[in-house]
Amino acid sequence: MPIITLLTDFGLEDEFVGVMKGVILSIHPRVNIVDITHQVPPQGVLQAARTLSASYPYFPEGTVHVIVVDPGVGTARKIIGLQKDDQFFIAPDNGVLTFLYDTQGVQSIVAVENEAFFLSPVSRTFHGRDIMAPVAAHLSKGSPLSCLGTAVSDRQLVRIEVTAPFISPGKGIRGSITTVDHFGNLITDIHKELLESLMPNAGHGGVMIHVAGMRIAGLSPGYQSRKKGDFLALINSRNQLEIAVCCGSAQQRLPAQVGDKVEVTVAKKPLVD
Amino acid sequence: MPIITLLTDFGLEDEFVGVMKGVILSIHPRVNIVDITHQVPPQGVLQAARTLSASYPYFPEGTVHVIVVDPGVGTARKIIGLQKDDQFFIAPDNGVLTFLYDTQGVQSIVAVENEAFFLSPVSRTFHGRDIMAPVAAHLSKGSPLSCLGTAVSDRQLVRIEVTAPFISPGKGIRGSITTVDHFGNLITDIHKELLESLMPNAGHGGVMIHVAGMRIAGLSPGYQSRKKGDFLALINSRNQLEIAVCCGSAQQRLPAQVGDKVEVTVAKKPLVD
Amino acid sequence: MPIITLLTDFGLEDEFVGVMKGVILSIHPRVNIVDITHQVPPQGVLQAARTLSASYPYFPEGTVHVIVVDPGVGTARKIIGLQKDDQFFIAPDNGVLTFLYDTQGVQSIVAVENEAFFLSPVSRTFHGRDIMAPVAAHLSKGSPLSCLGTAVSDRQLVRIEVTAPFISPGKGIRGSITTVDHFGNLITDIHKELLESLMPNAGHGGVMIHVAGMRIAGLSPGYQSRKKGDFLALINSRNQLEIAVCCGSAQQRLPAQVGDKVEVTVAKKPLVD
Repeated sequence: MPIITLLTDFGLEDEFVGVMKGVILSIHPRVNIVDITHQVPPQGVLQAARTLSASYPYFPEGTVHVIVVDPGVGTARKIIGLQKDDQFFIAPDNGVLTFLYDTQGVQSIVAVENEAFFLSPVSRTFHGRDIMAPVAAHLSKGSPLSCLGTAVSDRQLVRIEVTAPFISPGKGIRGSITTVDHFGNLITDIHKELLESLMPNAGHGGVMIHVAGMRIAGLSPGYQSRKKGDFLALINSRNQLEIAVCCGSAQQRLPAQVGDKVEVTVAKKPLVD
Repeated sequence: MPIITLLTDFGLEDEFVGVMKGVILSIHPRVNIVDITHQVPPQGVLQAARTLSASYPYFPEGTVHVIVVDPGVGTARKIIGLQKDDQFFIAPDNGVLTFLYDTQGVQSIVAVENEAFFLSPVSRTFHGRDIMAPVAAHLSKGSPLSCLGTAVSDRQLVRIEVTAPFISPGKGIRGSITTVDHFGNLITDIHKELLESLMPNAGHGGVMIHVAGMRIAGLSPGYQSRKKGDFLALINSRNQLEIAVCCGSAQQRLPAQVGDKVEVTVAKKPLVD
Repeated sequence: MPIITLLTDFGLEDEFVGVMKGVILSIHPRVNIVDITHQVPPQGVLQAARTLSASYPYFPEGTVHVIVVDPGVGTARKIIGLQKDDQFFIAPDNGVLTFLYDTQGVQSIVAVENEAFFLSPVSRTFHGRDIMAPVAAHLSKGSPLSCLGTAVSDRQLVRIEVTAPFISPGKGIRGSITTVDHFGNLITDIHKELLESLMPNAGHGGVMIHVAGMRIAGLSPGYQSRKKGDFLALINSRNQLEIAVCCGSAQQRLPAQVGDKVEVTVAKKPLVD
């Protein structure tokens, strides 16, 4: 069965998510609907963009991803349909698809305009229900993306400005915390590849991580590589540098939050777990 | 595939919802189960009734809606099966179906009594699992409602007393806040039709909304029709009057809660966004 | 369609659960995935074990239960596959399957080792995604458990030490609170059978329950058998002794928490509701 995923800031207290599922299943009863999360902070477009990047690679061809973090609903903002690696993405044009633009595999992008695929009437306040859910249902039934509207270039679309982590010559890498997960782990934008470019020969023991006034020496292979309660840094399952506490929550122990600076330097004395 | 929806006050920490799904799928493996919400406040019968009203119209014929907000479980209270517009509703007789009674489209109502459709034994404390889930599974497989028990009239059933909003001659409309949603929007019981009856010729700019000691002039078309942080009022996707803050939470800014009075008067000077 | 259930401590804010579902559906598109809960407290192995015990009996033969409460991910801890009553269980070897060992119906246990069933590469930090989800998908498609790895005896596996409730001769039963549910009910480890062994002839009215310095006389048949706001004790839908408040939350009224002692004595004067 084809798959539609939902990623929203709707929370789970109201009927909003259930209503979108009713709309989808009314049009296409034989589809698997998967919740990615509905706990994106209200209007958290960047956080939704990051969550999308971390999740869509695990879905098969033909999956339709619907992202409804849409503070601009009811304004003139477009709704975008994007095809990449034979998966589909339906989202408002507010930058939530930023990390997909300019990537390999993008096949086509359209502005979703064909009202034949919408509920009628379309409200001014709930396009997730009236436009994005029915459009996704039709896509999952096999309607081609090109039927939804006219092609657009990603140059015409809204992007989120994100400061990429960078190497400061002679000093090290400077990045930031992008996410604090459910366990209180601090996830950064510093990827494994960047780290390896800093210290091709130093090995994992040869780095020092600086965060919130604290230093962590070396990278650990897993969450339990140090003593209970000790801080550690590791490369996580998204290939990003992450700061954690063995059997605990880094967030509860450090005055650190999303956006805070994280630096990596080459240690003078290598330390290995 | 047929659909069963679940609407409960069970929360998501315990296994209660998962167990109901196990019971349903043991009886009918080819059914789509959709969660409306499990975050109704404990024993929140009125809130569940409102959430049901907002969600069921988006589901197709044949859908079975199960509502388990059931503080009276284990007492002599009935369990009701209702058919309306070829959808089905299974719920305790505590008023949670109030807004369906007296409406067009009601086809039949029964007291659910036929133990052949129940798990055995039936506990005194979890009829969601032992009665409502298996009954819903059998309905979704095609068992007729009439097999579940004897017909009853809605005159015999429990109703919630709700004060409807009303027009006060020469003054305006008086209603109340019924829901505060996940975004902190204040949803009222004042419907678009009632508003339009107050000011058939005044247009949207011609009203003044009074809530929690504050006045909002005019109706806005969408959530971003005013400046960031400004209060606004609009007709929401349920066709109800709603008070919001552009890019923010009205609940965090006003000392307003469910049950509080909301008044609409005709403005002396029309104001349009 | 076959069923896979998920029971984790991942919460619902991040993409972790959605990603596991993507992995499962990429391998086996025609499976029903049921969430038991993702709100187990972080690293709450015992709580997950109890939730599993309360949920799996309601699922049909062939169901695959995946339990990812896995503080030891990345260490040398095994991953276990267990078959019992023709249901399957995939979990880390940290005691979360304790209550299944030594029970009737266990058919076989293996250490999950066959990398042909894993994603590649396998991360050090997310075996739910890289090992447990794909293994469950293959099991639900019909791969036999014996293909996953070599047989092990439950004697070789980690168990959680749990103090069972016991009868103190001449005094009564001594047990403890194991769970506080969403409604604030205090669930104990004292089963109906043990209670009945204490007072085969006394009837439900003949017991006194002692918890957090308070006494409750007699067992009630249901949550509304006493006056609104009164404490009561009953045998719940899991056949366990439970302490509740009529139309309220026992947790909000008592200084009681998981692990606290609960005693049952034979009352001098039987009291019946």
